Amino acid sequence: MATENALIDGALRNWHSNMDRVGRFFRSLSDDDLQKEIAPGKNRLIYIWGHLSATNDRMIPLLGFGERRYPELDLIFISQPDRAVPHNFAGEAMGDMWSQLGDLLWSEFAKLTPAEWLDRHQAASPEDFEREPHRNRYTILLGRTTHLAYHLGQAILVKR
Amino acid sequence: MATENALIDGALRNWHSNMDRVGRFFRSLSDDDLQKEIAPGKNRLIYIWGHLSATNDRMIPLLGFGERRYPELDLIFISQPDRAVPHNFAGEAMGDMWSQLGDLLWSEFAKLTPAEWLDRHQAASPEDFEREPHRNRYTILLGRTTHLAYHLGQAILVKR
Repeated sequence: MATENALIDGALRNWHSNMDRVGRFFRSLSDDDLQKEIAPGKNRLIYIWGHLSATNDRMIPLLGFGERRYPELDLIFISQPDRAVPHNFAGEAMGDMWSQLGDLLWSEFAKLTPAEWLDRHQAASPEDFEREPHRNRYTILLGRTTHLAYHLGQAILVKR
Repeated sequence: MATENALIDGALRNWHSNMDRVGRFFRSLSDDDLQKEIAPGKNRLIYIWGHLSATNDRMIPLLGFGERRYPELDLIFISQPDRAVPHNFAGEAMGDMWSQLGDLLWSEFAKLTPAEWLDRHQAASPEDFEREPHRNRYTILLGRTTHLAYHLGQAILVKR
């Protein structure tokens, strides 16, 4: 059990560290900064922050933690590219959402046993999971952590 | 034991998937493409590939797998910024190095038991490790996986 917990602890530390870096980076920006593109013709910073927030919100039902808090984010930040859907999200509202979702996920993570981490996530059917036991909560945590890092690497290209 | 192995399997899958994406992306580029910058005034693609290769090479002694294969990469791709040190690395040599290092790490990973994954890495002294048991091989694997994703997110901004 000690071994299992240490492995999970490592993954939680990595998640937390990336969440913290993303949150600190975006909170340091003005609303004008958030309108900047990461590279010419590419996504704006506000889009990346919204995309990561929507991804976190989707983790709530995916990991069996309850209902989504901000399902309206998907249309703007996931299913459509940047600038396709007009919106009024600015830094303060985004920062509040980021904290709320981060706190919610973190407190739910803390309740899971190792066996629950390895249980299937809600996008895999019991039959899928029988064939592909890696479609579990733990691999979602790992994959979402690399997803944070992937977009953080892009966002950080914009100097203030 | 089954639980421990499933947790480690998840982390190895995430590493492998990111290594594979990075390798496929860079191999698809010509030597001219590799000279492109990820954004105006930022690192060139060849530098990012070299930086990730050097990081992989450093994992060999860090994880106790033996001597480094390409220690000369550090001066060009780690300790100095892009363009500071002239070099002649091009796609074919980089691709060979990438495969060799990826194969070496992968075959060493496969030999480790869960307890060995949780043993200290070589940049932590026994005293450090006593105080900070998360300074182990497993958290290096997780951290290096997010590092791959961080730079892949940047590299991918360059359209061919």
